Amino acid sequence: MIRHGAFQVAPWTVREKTLDLDVLAQSESVFALSNGHIGLRANLDEGEPFGLPGTYLNGFYEGRPLPYAEAGFGYPESGQMVVNATNGKLIRLLVEDEPFDVRYGELRRHERVLDMRAGTLTRDVEWCSPTRQVVRVRTIRLVSLVQRAIAAILYEVEPVDEPLRVVLQSELVANEPLPAVKGDPRTAAAEADLVGEHAAVHGLRAVLVHSTQQSGLRMAAAMDHLVEGPGDIDSDAEADADLARATVTAQIQPGAPLRLTKLIAYGWSHERSMPAVRDQVEAALAEARHTGWDALCKHQREFLDGFWERGDVEIEGEPRLQQALRFGMFHVLQAGARNEGRAIPAKGLTGSGYDGHAFWDTEVYALPMLTHAFPDASRDALQWRHSTLDRARQRAKQLGLEGAAFPWRTISGEECSGYWPAGTAAFHVNAGIANAASRYVNVTKDDRFARHYGLELLVETARLWRSLGHHDAAGRFRIDGVTGPDEYSAIADNNIYTNLAAQRNLIAAAETAEHFPKEAASLGVDAEEAAAWRDAANAMTIPFDEALGVHQQAEAYTQHATWGFDSTPPENYPLFLNYPYFDIYRKQVVKQADLVLAMALFRSSFTEQERARNFSYYEAITVRDSSLSACTQAVIAAHVGQLDLAFEYMIEAALMDLHDLEHNSRDGVHMASLAGAWIAAVGGLGGLTESGEHLGFAPRLPQQLNRLRFRIAFRGSVVEVEATAKQATYTLQMGAEELTITHHGEEVRLKTDSPTTKQIPAIKPGPRPTQPPGRGPLGARGAG
Amino acid sequence: MIRHGAFQVAPWTVREKTLDLDVLAQSESVFALSNGHIGLRANLDEGEPFGLPGTYLNGFYEGRPLPYAEAGFGYPESGQMVVNATNGKLIRLLVEDEPFDVRYGELRRHERVLDMRAGTLTRDVEWCSPTRQVVRVRTIRLVSLVQRAIAAILYEVEPVDEPLRVVLQSELVANEPLPAVKGDPRTAAAEADLVGEHAAVHGLRAVLVHSTQQSGLRMAAAMDHLVEGPGDIDSDAEADADLARATVTAQIQPGAPLRLTKLIAYGWSHERSMPAVRDQVEAALAEARHTGWDALCKHQREFLDGFWERGDVEIEGEPRLQQALRFGMFHVLQAGARNEGRAIPAKGLTGSGYDGHAFWDTEVYALPMLTHAFPDASRDALQWRHSTLDRARQRAKQLGLEGAAFPWRTISGEECSGYWPAGTAAFHVNAGIANAASRYVNVTKDDRFARHYGLELLVETARLWRSLGHHDAAGRFRIDGVTGPDEYSAIADNNIYTNLAAQRNLIAAAETAEHFPKEAASLGVDAEEAAAWRDAANAMTIPFDEALGVHQQAEAYTQHATWGFDSTPPENYPLFLNYPYFDIYRKQVVKQADLVLAMALFRSSFTEQERARNFSYYEAITVRDSSLSACTQAVIAAHVGQLDLAFEYMIEAALMDLHDLEHNSRDGVHMASLAGAWIAAVGGLGGLTESGEHLGFAPRLPQQLNRLRFRIAFRGSVVEVEATAKQATYTLQMGAEELTITHHGEEVRLKTDSPTTKQIPAIKPGPRPTQPPGRGPLGARGAG
Repeated sequence: MIRHGAFQVAPWTVREKTLDLDVLAQSESVFALSNGHIGLRANLDEGEPFGLPGTYLNGFYEGRPLPYAEAGFGYPESGQMVVNATNGKLIRLLVEDEPFDVRYGELRRHERVLDMRAGTLTRDVEWCSPTRQVVRVRTIRLVSLVQRAIAAILYEVEPVDEPLRVVLQSELVANEPLPAVKGDPRTAAAEADLVGEHAAVHGLRAVLVHSTQQSGLRMAAAMDHLVEGPGDIDSDAEADADLARATVTAQIQPGAPLRLTKLIAYGWSHERSMPAVRDQVEAALAEARHTGWDALCKHQREFLDGFWERGDVEIEGEPRLQQALRFGMFHVLQAGARNEGRAIPAKGLTGSGYDGHAFWDTEVYALPMLTHAFPDASRDALQWRHSTLDRARQRAKQLGLEGAAFPWRTISGEECSGYWPAGTAAFHVNAGIANAASRYVNVTKDDRFARHYGLELLVETARLWRSLGHHDAAGRFRIDGVTGPDEYSAIADNNIYTNLAAQRNLIAAAETAEHFPKEAASLGVDAEEAAAWRDAANAMTIPFDEALGVHQQAEAYTQHATWGFDSTPPENYPLFLNYPYFDIYRKQVVKQADLVLAMALFRSSFTEQERARNFSYYEAITVRDSSLSACTQAVIAAHVGQLDLAFEYMIEAALMDLHDLEHNSRDGVHMASLAGAWIAAVGGLGGLTESGEHLGFAPRLPQQLNRLRFRIAFRGSVVEVEATAKQATYTLQMGAEELTITHHGEEVRLKTDSPTTKQIPAIKPGPRPTQPPGRGPLGARGAG
Repeated sequence: MIRHGAFQVAPWTVREKTLDLDVLAQSESVFALSNGHIGLRANLDEGEPFGLPGTYLNGFYEGRPLPYAEAGFGYPESGQMVVNATNGKLIRLLVEDEPFDVRYGELRRHERVLDMRAGTLTRDVEWCSPTRQVVRVRTIRLVSLVQRAIAAILYEVEPVDEPLRVVLQSELVANEPLPAVKGDPRTAAAEADLVGEHAAVHGLRAVLVHSTQQSGLRMAAAMDHLVEGPGDIDSDAEADADLARATVTAQIQPGAPLRLTKLIAYGWSHERSMPAVRDQVEAALAEARHTGWDALCKHQREFLDGFWERGDVEIEGEPRLQQALRFGMFHVLQAGARNEGRAIPAKGLTGSGYDGHAFWDTEVYALPMLTHAFPDASRDALQWRHSTLDRARQRAKQLGLEGAAFPWRTISGEECSGYWPAGTAAFHVNAGIANAASRYVNVTKDDRFARHYGLELLVETARLWRSLGHHDAAGRFRIDGVTGPDEYSAIADNNIYTNLAAQRNLIAAAETAEHFPKEAASLGVDAEEAAAWRDAANAMTIPFDEALGVHQQAEAYTQHATWGFDSTPPENYPLFLNYPYFDIYRKQVVKQADLVLAMALFRSSFTEQERARNFSYYEAITVRDSSLSACTQAVIAAHVGQLDLAFEYMIEAALMDLHDLEHNSRDGVHMASLAGAWIAAVGGLGGLTESGEHLGFAPRLPQQLNRLRFRIAFRGSVVEVEATAKQATYTLQMGAEELTITHHGEEVRLKTDSPTTKQIPAIKPGPRPTQPPGRGPLGARGAG
């Protein structure tokens, strides 16, 4: 776990004052830079020591066989794993024959700063070598949000006391050795060897082309250099299959640093030839040279200014939460900004956790924020799903179902889950995708997307649900034998989250087909089919325990034994690493919000009283062994007026990676939890709901916060919401001249630039819900 | 599939008139010889061609890693697979420089006969070599039921027309190449290399010692020879690591055969040293030499005479059924006769199917017959289970449970199932074991076993059930999230078979503990614990669908969608090879009797009307993709008066391997189905029930049969039952002077050797239940 205080609290930066090698891998994730296309872990420039070396290219993966002790029909035979691509961020330094390595000599200063407005990672080092030579090294690294194929590093080295001989080796290294993988199934599988296809060098410019062995992908990495400095500088470059190296030798003086600007370009494809991919990166490099370092930095800042202008969430009263919220938004933006045509993985491009796979997290956790704050990324992510429809149709067919069955986990669209009870059976991913498409369309009114992508996503998923469920003798529509979001249950009947998500999916499909009759007809939808979707939606089974007066996560759920929380020692969490699935599945213990997530997403399906009762019941059995949970618990805690609890869960969601709360940030940051902090702020404390034309807010602040301000893009308008303890002020900032919203259920007509202030009604919450022993929110203690 | 008529119908033999290489592997299983300790597949003496070479030693296995695409806590990491041990049955023949091989030259006669009274496999061959030399070869093979370490072969070769030079090579061959394994999960995993430790030869006697690489087992195989024949005979022997060979060269004349008697001995151990195991087989060989071929044959026949005398089931009216019943009993005897301290695998020692594992089949299918017809084998099998109690306790502990959790599949007691929903979750195996122990004790009154083994099995399994289930708010005892016998459902709540089996287990544990208070106390059982068992048993949840008026296989089962039988083409059976588990599990489709098995084993828990209604309901959704099903369906069909159907299912169960009905007899015979034929005859047509002191019969014959006669050992007595269409005659043959039984519910007092004849009451069955299209019993058409 990252020690408290490792990162200085500041509104726009994350600053690490000293280097702690024990959490080096975690800091590599926290400080990772990405644009959704390329991702660089924050490995030290000189390459060693490292926690996990990582250079990821979105959609660049290797195949691997998925083994089974006992095979079964429809089990995926081939998995996919993100590959550590050619490392272009390596710049080694030799000081008077002594390699710069923080493990030797004396590290007098080591500071790293992630600047969330500049979009850069800077490093400032003063190092005294074992032979007592002192140098200062300053580097700035960026992955361009504007030129998506480009990363760049500015590297400065300067002697502190006396002239020194230094050598810089700037490299492209393919097939770096990786640390061995341990037993946790959440980490990645193994390393893959890339096959060298081409290596070339021209001056200080070099390019390496490699291909994967199984997946048929090809990648090129190229670098170029600008060397500046006084005096006698020698430089040369060479390239081999797995190594390209530019070497710069200089005698430098105090006050006159040697400065190396390194431009790195990546390109990859599963179709293009070696020369084509090679030329593509050379061209990107040429463009970056033309742009130059200063302009790259300027464009980066402009891009981010635009993002923060549209989407920033301001909080007063808890600076660490303000920082963490922006940190989360920054990472989600990085994961999604330039993901054109590719997935947003659970870890973004910050680590190899979960093999680099994308899950339902994308649509259900990351897209809500992106839809409002950076809608292009949301559209791109959904279009990526749409591009995999053929594979999803094939999968549905293999499973004996109609329509499309999207994979539980994947890189390129094929199902890669090797454990079907928590993979294939988790069909709710399909509703997550469909409903995210509906939300995107509703928020943006992007008719072109709706017509050409959204409709088909809705239709094919509606077909899936219709064939997956059936009407029973009483006419109720049942969806049996599926797995909901809570991974501590599986293969249950009528999981309430799944059923409500499917219900929304079915209704939206029918409505959208009605809205685009010609396009719907071309997809084979007729009135009978749409009616069948509506019938199923209207007859959806919603399990409720009359005796207890609470909804059931799934049928019979509340009749199961309750987990023995009192006899579960703290070290036995997460449970799935210490207890067999069979035991976990059959008892009442919740890994992550499931019914509670249903209440957050399908608010109108529950009364206020049901929400409070359900929340209280499920809080007592929710252990939150998943990073997907705290943010949702924060939302419902806020809705039911448990504001302290909401605040604490929100803190936990936001600090997931800055404090490494789940001890696995080394594998990459938890994109869903970071996006979830935004959801907790806007959807929880802000009470945002959207349903068709209706945009609603119900802000309510915990005592720890004085003010919350955020902006919501909605159908061409932007609404700013500013809430304090007592009142909320709404401002229509652009777009339509008028907009009707609701404030705690009351209709409010907003006019452009004429703020409207409303009192926040009081709420009398019931007693604070309790959690299983030791499983209360980490918010309070983890960040005190 | 074995062609109809491949085996001649005869009461005591199975005769194959010609050799059909297309079903060679199947015939190797059908004609396999075993004594439960050693098993020899019926590979041709000369080794080739073969379907699957097989020499199995009970409990001699190799370990292999069990791989998982996604690991989980408590998954077994190491599997076990039966090893093809050193092949001692090989005798090659060279005729005038031409190797005897049925694929070459002309096979003028090839007849094999399994004699179920003699306990031998004979072979009679006339072969014209490619160079037109004609020889006659006659061999007799046995695996001694009396000297458990010994197999023996009498090999005679004789020229038909003119003197010939012949060479016999009698061998021990380790590490024979095996055919590659295909995709069916029911076949075995792979071959294992044995490591040669010792090879020695003395005269025509040789011994090879090998050990496994992973499992730490050591085996020795030894052979000795007696050569008889006229004229000039040369013989010599040699031994290498993986090959020992005795070579006999002779010039032989028509009418004066060369005769080789080969004695083979096996020994194996996981503890004993190489010299100890080597000497053990040499000693066994010395004893067999001392006994001699003729006496080996004589003892074999005496052993079998005793068995048939006690246990034979006679049927009139359907000769093929008579043959198949005896064939089944013969194989079950072979599997169990000398299994001292080791398991009875699902395939016995007739093939490597299911990796040679033992399942619940042993206790629930094989032991009922053995308990009545050869009780020592039943005791031994249960003592083997008892010997694995420590492993079962460890497993229970790992699973977070009390008591003992026996493995779903194993060779040596460790769980080897790599798919927990159909492995670990199938806890009913534990009740199967416990209830088999109760039955054995009830039938034999073996107090010593009850006190020292049975009690502990009952106590530890009762503890398992008590900790696996819980009382709900209404006080009902629920067992949630388990898998019943039907492998087309999994992880269900309150599987009725499991709950009834657990109920019986709990009650028997409480009663037995009361009966042996001192021993129970030493196991830590007190009055409170026994009371908790009774409470759980009395409050057991038995799911019933009031609307349909039928029991539910598990809670909510009858609300699930029904499988689309009409859209399932015949070639898509068995379903599990063509549809994903997720789809199969969540629909109403039954692979094998589950609720119907519950009705067969826990008859008093159902009314007559319930039995008929349930049977009719579940028949319509049972596809019988398992060989464990037909026999049970036969039993209930008989109980509800559907006698034609009972007959057809009985035929199917009995002919499973003689007709290769499931197309996988090549991997070994289906011991449970073969034992099930006995169950169908005695428990179904005979209506046998035993409950405490009560022994009941309710015989009723289908029109196809004129007479059924069987004997039942019970508490030292033997009751013979002879039934015709109209009446049943009961004879108390030995034991007590008087015994009260019931005949169709009516009490009848039997006296020694004074037969009592009773009329069989008429029954008016309802309409014949229907099965899914194409899934009716194979009995009628498969054996016409």
